[in-house]
Amino acid sequence: MLSGVGHQLRRMASSVSSDARFIFRQWFDRESCTYTYLLGDADTKEALIIDPVIQLAERDAQQVQDMGLNLKYVMNTHVHADHITGTGLLKKLLACTNVKSVISKESGAEADVYVSGGDEITFGDMVVEVRSTPGHTNGCISYVFHAGRRVFTGDALLIRGCGRTDFQEGNSETLYNSVNSQIFSLPDDYFVYPAHDYKGLTVSTVGEEKKYNPRLSKPLDEFKTIMSNLNLDYPKQIDVALPANRVCGLYNLPAALTEKYGDKLVAK
Amino acid sequence: MLSGVGHQLRRMASSVSSDARFIFRQWFDRESCTYTYLLGDADTKEALIIDPVIQLAERDAQQVQDMGLNLKYVMNTHVHADHITGTGLLKKLLACTNVKSVISKESGAEADVYVSGGDEITFGDMVVEVRSTPGHTNGCISYVFHAGRRVFTGDALLIRGCGRTDFQEGNSETLYNSVNSQIFSLPDDYFVYPAHDYKGLTVSTVGEEKKYNPRLSKPLDEFKTIMSNLNLDYPKQIDVALPANRVCGLYNLPAALTEKYGDKLVAK
Ligand SMILES: [Fe+2]
Ligand SMILES: [Fe+2]
Repeated sequence: MLSGVGHQLRRMASSVSSDARFIFRQWFDRESCTYTYLLGDADTKEALIIDPVIQLAERDAQQVQDMGLNLKYVMNTHVHADHITGTGLLKKLLACTNVKSVISKESGAEADVYVSGGDEITFGDMVVEVRSTPGHTNGCISYVFHAGRRVFTGDALLIRGCGRTDFQEGNSETLYNSVNSQIFSLPDDYFVYPAHDYKGLTVSTVGEEKKYNPRLSKPLDEFKTIMSNLNLDYPKQIDVALPANRVCGLYNLPAALTEKYGDKLVAK
Repeated sequence: MLSGVGHQLRRMASSVSSDARFIFRQWFDRESCTYTYLLGDADTKEALIIDPVIQLAERDAQQVQDMGLNLKYVMNTHVHADHITGTGLLKKLLACTNVKSVISKESGAEADVYVSGGDEITFGDMVVEVRSTPGHTNGCISYVFHAGRRVFTGDALLIRGCGRTDFQEGNSETLYNSVNSQIFSLPDDYFVYPAHDYKGLTVSTVGEEKKYNPRLSKPLDEFKTIMSNLNLDYPKQIDVALPANRVCGLYNLPAALTEKYGDKLVAK
């Protein structure tokens, strides 16, 4: 069971993981329980960020700089109602690298680049596939990074849960069909990286969610009943978050944030 | 930049990552900002958990069950002062699988298995190397998982920080030497997984910490000055955590926890 350090350790370690081709980071916002993701090409250093939070944009920019990355895109999975996106502030903080904001055409929000299901987003020699996964909002998209066997599901599919469907054009039947056709159709071993988790879980797999998701493993009728009986509170942040997120967090910021980040929000 | 879905995606995806040989999960406790880790052998399903938190033991046990794993060890990097370990409760919740608790001999705590620097812990065909990294406490150890190019550093090395050295036999010079000889001597691309992060960062690398750690990238004298000037508060949890953690969270629990978990703490 326990013994002296064996030399097979060194041998195992010398076979560098194929994951070394890309850089991946998951960052958490303890306030809104939001996960932000970084994907980078380890060779070319081109990178993208998914779903940043404005209050943590300086942290994220520092990480990008520490890793010597060249940020190409800041992408949102949808117009968030629970936090203001860090997209606008990140663009300013990393202004020298000509970062472009990305959101779905169907979201109705403003960004530099609009995408729809079937599009690809490239960074270095890597590529992310856009999948249309409406239902939580009309404009929800998921990003599939096949080379890393990962799908970034936004609020469409959460770990053992899913985004609510009672506002922002939410529709439970649409969400059910999105998850089944666009996410559960991926291989079982693909990692599911959601936009939020409230229990400290960081990742799941397609196979696990198909089996154990207490909502989406159920038949459609049962799912619709579950979703219509959630009785959730009106989201605290929604009235400030939506106007700001419709312009990628560049304008329409609440006074406290304009005061805090005002000088940084003015392009250098 | 953006185009229709290319077929090269499928080809890239068909080469399964070498990381598929092992199962890895990182779990967060939002109260104490503690990270708990799960490592499993994907073939044999034997697994171990590092640094669980008692309040989240049920979550952890559920994850182990969902993934069909056979938990072999629950290991602590040291006697924690900021939370009560979930080791005892996990042993009870998963009693059928004969889980063994692991801690360092030098910690002075009670456990089923005692380890010291140089020992190996095996699960399935996988192995974790124990490295002695005292300084935050006398009994601090780090676990190196070479096959996954990961080191679990406990409180010895945090992301852009390190554990305090002003109580529990802490010694800044000892910590400095531990990190330099036992962690910074690993290859630069090894992932650093700490026991805590307070800013929502989840992982770093040996190379990044050697370069950017604001404390440990400094010469010894400067490090010692930094550590002696931290002026940190007395830890809120320490007086209940230490007695419980010295027996792996099996006994000496505060009344509120005994009441909450009492029936589960009695072996079935
Ligand atoms: Fe949302
Ligand atoms: Fe500690």
